Amino acid sequence: MKTVGIALVGFGTIGSGVVEILQTLEKTIEKRTGISPELRWVVDKDITTPRPVKVEKAKLTTDYREALSDPKVDIVIELVGGKTFAYTLVEEALKAGKHVVTANKALLAERGKDLFSLAKQMKKSLAFEASVGGGIPILRTITHSLVGDIIEGIYAIVNGTTNYILTQMSLSHRSLDEALREAQKKGFAEADPTLDLNGDDAAHKLAILASLAFHTEVEFSQVYYEGIEHIALEDILHAEKMGYVIKLLAIAKRDKDNRLELRVHPTLVPQDNQLAFVHHEYNAILVEGRYLGTSMYYGKGAGSHPTATAVVADVMAIAEHLESKSFELFRAYQKLEVKPIDEVFCRYYLRFHVLDQMGVLAKIASIFGEYGISIASVLQPEQSENEYVPLIMTTHEASEKKMRLALEEISRLSFVRDRVVMIRILDGREK
Amino acid sequence: MKTVGIALVGFGTIGSGVVEILQTLEKTIEKRTGISPELRWVVDKDITTPRPVKVEKAKLTTDYREALSDPKVDIVIELVGGKTFAYTLVEEALKAGKHVVTANKALLAERGKDLFSLAKQMKKSLAFEASVGGGIPILRTITHSLVGDIIEGIYAIVNGTTNYILTQMSLSHRSLDEALREAQKKGFAEADPTLDLNGDDAAHKLAILASLAFHTEVEFSQVYYEGIEHIALEDILHAEKMGYVIKLLAIAKRDKDNRLELRVHPTLVPQDNQLAFVHHEYNAILVEGRYLGTSMYYGKGAGSHPTATAVVADVMAIAEHLESKSFELFRAYQKLEVKPIDEVFCRYYLRFHVLDQMGVLAKIASIFGEYGISIASVLQPEQSENEYVPLIMTTHEASEKKMRLALEEISRLSFVRDRVVMIRILDGREK
Repeated sequence: MKTVGIALVGFGTIGSGVVEILQTLEKTIEKRTGISPELRWVVDKDITTPRPVKVEKAKLTTDYREALSDPKVDIVIELVGGKTFAYTLVEEALKAGKHVVTANKALLAERGKDLFSLAKQMKKSLAFEASVGGGIPILRTITHSLVGDIIEGIYAIVNGTTNYILTQMSLSHRSLDEALREAQKKGFAEADPTLDLNGDDAAHKLAILASLAFHTEVEFSQVYYEGIEHIALEDILHAEKMGYVIKLLAIAKRDKDNRLELRVHPTLVPQDNQLAFVHHEYNAILVEGRYLGTSMYYGKGAGSHPTATAVVADVMAIAEHLESKSFELFRAYQKLEVKPIDEVFCRYYLRFHVLDQMGVLAKIASIFGEYGISIASVLQPEQSENEYVPLIMTTHEASEKKMRLALEEISRLSFVRDRVVMIRILDGREK
Repeated sequence: MKTVGIALVGFGTIGSGVVEILQTLEKTIEKRTGISPELRWVVDKDITTPRPVKVEKAKLTTDYREALSDPKVDIVIELVGGKTFAYTLVEEALKAGKHVVTANKALLAERGKDLFSLAKQMKKSLAFEASVGGGIPILRTITHSLVGDIIEGIYAIVNGTTNYILTQMSLSHRSLDEALREAQKKGFAEADPTLDLNGDDAAHKLAILASLAFHTEVEFSQVYYEGIEHIALEDILHAEKMGYVIKLLAIAKRDKDNRLELRVHPTLVPQDNQLAFVHHEYNAILVEGRYLGTSMYYGKGAGSHPTATAVVADVMAIAEHLESKSFELFRAYQKLEVKPIDEVFCRYYLRFHVLDQMGVLAKIASIFGEYGISIASVLQPEQSENEYVPLIMTTHEASEKKMRLALEEISRLSFVRDRVVMIRILDGREK
């Protein structure tokens, strides 16, 4: 039987999952593919702390070069995370003539260009299904299943932490802080959740999705992103009344001039949109194709076992074509321009905190009028107790630039207190 | 540039979509894959009726053997449908050393075994992504992305006609007949909708899904199926009050003894199940994996363009590995036993039409008691006008056999009129 030699570097949560699947399903995978996956090395700087799975001592090492120099290793799995040592590891592995499988979205989004170019030069594969959407096979779908389609837009929930928090706020009416603590207790948020909450993680994933979907090089710095830190429970409740749920969406779409919008931000999603039903820690990627129309891929975006299935799928896909000269997952054959966020057009949900007095609404409306921004709806809940009251508005489509300028002006008004909350609305046409 | 020669047989709706995509995206596909898809022949018994796309005369033929004898044809696309000529065509194409792509679910479900065996013998590919779920890449997901997982169950909406009808009934409170006419008007149901309504189409697709998911040969005759013909609007309304929507589900699951359940039937799906949000003509396949957990794949299950994207994806997947000796999509390395429907356990929704008199409920309950079937809920809407009134019940889990025997006995009671409506309930644990 054909054998594929594997070295796994990074024996953490996902690494343990990969080891478990390879150990448990070794015979099954052989029967399914005719190829035997042989785990030859498990590399970690810490090889003594007990893990949920057992690896025989002879296979454990702290020296990744020991694995790279093993001629029977065909594929190196990089699960160390980070952008420094991980880069060195992938670089050295490719140079040593190994194929590489990685789950490292930050590495690929920020330093992927050189690594893909090196992989091409070495005629080796660099596969990364696990880097976006965990166990959801979205990358293989884009590169292979949609090879005969033109993707017009991607609308994705790719951060489980924020989706869990927003779902908790929406279904259980908790505050963001309460929901975050709940997420941490359940293991859906890290002790320091900053990179999840602020949209950074989703932005990395969007950069990868967009490069594959549009066959273009994407600079991570071109991805505009905002997090959910400023979303209050009251925004979720107001949105609900207006027929929306709030989701952190990662959006990549192409306009008529072939320019890309790449943005991650909280978004009011119509309640009947398929993405509105994606709850808790689940992820989903909705793809608009010219020929396929709307399709959506839903599942667990993180976790040891789900992510490990994607790693194993990549390993076996490479193993099936070990002898072929090159296995290029995708070709970034064009360089599409990315539209600055100022030029993006959206509809907006706005929440002001204003002094409860005559003329406030008129003044705000007149400023919007000056910028050519048209108000679609106004909601001012009756509140007897407070001097300051919330004022909720939605607008028709306007450019980000005009909205930004108008809000700057409105924020300077004496009767406006606190930060204005601005959340973009997913247009029905975008579905 | 590498070229792949293609002959398309069957210039109907899907065929036209394939031609359109190959013509429109030829250069794009070249840039994406480095391979040029060359459509060399379009075969149909009718090559004169105008189609939405133009094919140069020299490529049109009524003689499929002309295409098969062209040494530059690598792949034959079978889109003629049916199980007779299609079989001959696929057989001759494989014997002529061509790879084959087909969208023909009935052919594969009923006569696939010999064709797969022939393909293996000839070391040629027989690909069929378009046969299930139209443009949804579910087969590639099962065979490739889930190679490192154990599928425990599949719960699928794979017939767009019935899903459109059930959605219309549910959202617009139409009768089945009205909804069917609406579906026919919109092109979601054929003039003779029998094979969609009675579950036959979904059963064919389930046979294919199950053989891939469980790596087993499936005899089509082993798939139990029922259609939606007996579902009335009132069942949909009662179900809604109890927290369910009615869907035609295709279910394949493995029990503890490694036996398969293969069944297609209307099903009460809890309103918070992901499948409950699959509306109109859309399809979705929910997969329960041991490691990945729940994932779902959603999109258009039919139509010229969506289905054509799957055909083109298959063509290019084969093209990428033309030189490799064999490209086996899946291996049916085991023969799992299929559980007879009598041995399946379900919860049930029942609607009786009974005389409005004392003792009716007690008598029915006592018969269920004799069979050890436990009633979970009873609903008897107050109706003053009629002698006969509806009586709705749900039960706890019971075997199909006991349920069948109990219902036979109840049907013979003098105060029970008409057919008893029995709909299975998707258990929360099955989600």
